Amino acid sequence: MPEDNIVYVGNKPTMNYVLAVTTQFGSDSKEVVIKARGKAISKAVDVAEIVRNRFNTDAKVKDIKISTEEITTEEGGSIKVSSIEITLAK
Amino acid sequence: MPEDNIVYVGNKPTMNYVLAVTTQFGSDSKEVVIKARGKAISKAVDVAEIVRNRFNTDAKVKDIKISTEEITTEEGGSIKVSSIEITLAK
Repeated sequence: MPEDNIVYVGNKPTMNYVLAVTTQFGSDSKEVVIKARGKAISKAVDVAEIVRNRFNTDAKVKDIKISTEEITTEEGGSIKVSSIEITLAK
Repeated sequence: MPEDNIVYVGNKPTMNYVLAVTTQFGSDSKEVVIKARGKAISKAVDVAEIVRNRFNTDAKVKDIKISTEEITTEEGGSIKVSSIEITLAK
């Protein structure tokens, strides 16, 4: 299933997500997609760079996509938030 | 000069950088590169998305690069920081 290869970056420490990506690569995944929204986008780039430079040096950035997602708030309104998808492949 | 087409995203409000990019496109630039480091990376993605969806809807994301830069601190040490380069083209 492709969903297995997605790591969602959020509020936890950066190294948690680095470990999650490295674990995916360790379990025979050829590709891992790192996703994040809003302020976590910077952390997603950190995760990709740390994995690539330190842990899986054979992994390369295959693709980066940015987009805008619309999130419904609890009050029923909606806000727009940027998102990023970084695909690492080896 | 290609340097004219680069917008560096930092600590100012997002809309300042949106205006800078839109101004570049208004002065006959076919491409504008949005650059940012560290926590400003999220804002750079916001800038690209707002320009593309609201002000220059003919502009497309042509390329996105991420990398790691080494910055020398005042104490003479060095820290690594992630950076992003988003190329918008129309």
